[in-house]
Amino acid sequence: MGRLRWQVVAVAVVGLALALEALPSALRWLRAGRRRRRPRREVLFFPSQVTCTEVLLQAPDAAPLAPSAGCGCSLPHGESSLSRLLRALLAARASLELCLFAFSSPQLGRAVQLLHQRGVRVRVITDCDYMALNGSQIGLLRKAGIQVRHDQDLGYMHHKFAIVDKKVLITGSLNWTTQAIQNNRENVLIMEDEDYVRLFLEEFERIWEEFNPTKYTFFPQKKRSH
Amino acid sequence: MGRLRWQVVAVAVVGLALALEALPSALRWLRAGRRRRRPRREVLFFPSQVTCTEVLLQAPDAAPLAPSAGCGCSLPHGESSLSRLLRALLAARASLELCLFAFSSPQLGRAVQLLHQRGVRVRVITDCDYMALNGSQIGLLRKAGIQVRHDQDLGYMHHKFAIVDKKVLITGSLNWTTQAIQNNRENVLIMEDEDYVRLFLEEFERIWEEFNPTKYTFFPQKKRSH
Repeated sequence: MGRLRWQVVAVAVVGLALALEALPSALRWLRAGRRRRRPRREVLFFPSQVTCTEVLLQAPDAAPLAPSAGCGCSLPHGESSLSRLLRALLAARASLELCLFAFSSPQLGRAVQLLHQRGVRVRVITDCDYMALNGSQIGLLRKAGIQVRHDQDLGYMHHKFAIVDKKVLITGSLNWTTQAIQNNRENVLIMEDEDYVRLFLEEFERIWEEFNPTKYTFFPQKKRSH
Repeated sequence: MGRLRWQVVAVAVVGLALALEALPSALRWLRAGRRRRRPRREVLFFPSQVTCTEVLLQAPDAAPLAPSAGCGCSLPHGESSLSRLLRALLAARASLELCLFAFSSPQLGRAVQLLHQRGVRVRVITDCDYMALNGSQIGLLRKAGIQVRHDQDLGYMHHKFAIVDKKVLITGSLNWTTQAIQNNRENVLIMEDEDYVRLFLEEFERIWEEFNPTKYTFFPQKKRSH
């Protein structure tokens, strides 16, 4: 009986010690989990350094370029705000929503066409005044079979956001033009916060439905100036 | 001795029980703390309903308007995206950094002047092409004694962000013009996330220093078109 009591004491003491030891570990584990679960939050500032983006933008049927070999051009081959933006877009596997006032950057146009070729469902909303300007990518995207819808409002469709796989929101001041990328002070946020993604996706679907082409009435009134 | 052993057993068992009980409470407390610490994350979409903002924009020496009494005008007096944006700005107590491509909205101009009158340190960065356009607020802000700096670059200073008390970042696609507020599709994010605030504040200070007026050299080359 004496031995049993000592065993009980020993078990209880060991249990207590283990429980007390476990507490800080559990807290650490929780904190680590919080770190792991912390959503991506990145800001890209522009103007972007001009870098070569050929390695990122290879067509599926092109002879592969080894990243180390480079493409032979004289541009720097490091990372830049533009290459980071391209990477964030090219990560899409299922869907890409684009809601863009102006879209004329050839590199971003190629990225969107690549995603379309890979089977990603791409939908584009844009502004009717800017889509027909010289250098616009919109005609090329439509020709490639990508669905594009546009406003016929008095105001501008002035958003500049993208949603990748309904999980990552890319939004900011940047119009997708070479002028903006290379010369302007601009910002682009890349974020995975669910709340923001949901709100922007709802806004996209609202506008997508409103700009349904079966509802067009060309063109009741002239648009005002900017 | 037998009693002592039982006491040790009892203390150990109670200790173990308390420790085990404490674990889920500690986890709940941690989770609750995480909820409480969750920063503000709001999105305003535009066009904004046109509402009266007189109650928000009363000068300190004006006869007070009771919110319930209204101002006698025929506009709706509820909340709108513009009124929410004004509230977020008017919450400033110490500092307001503004980095704006175009600023011509009379209501937003009055809000910034009110903050200046209240002793908030206001600093404005803007684009040199847009600041002299008809209806620009920039001249009024300068006349009121607010420091304004502008680019003399080839590119545009195309940011549209504000930082309130170095704690809240307000950024998006919206230029601060009545056209954009009332007619365009636009977004504005209001967020307290420290990382974003810090990165935008660093960008502000970088540009503020670069646009130091003692460095002006009027005007080496003409700017390109948009």
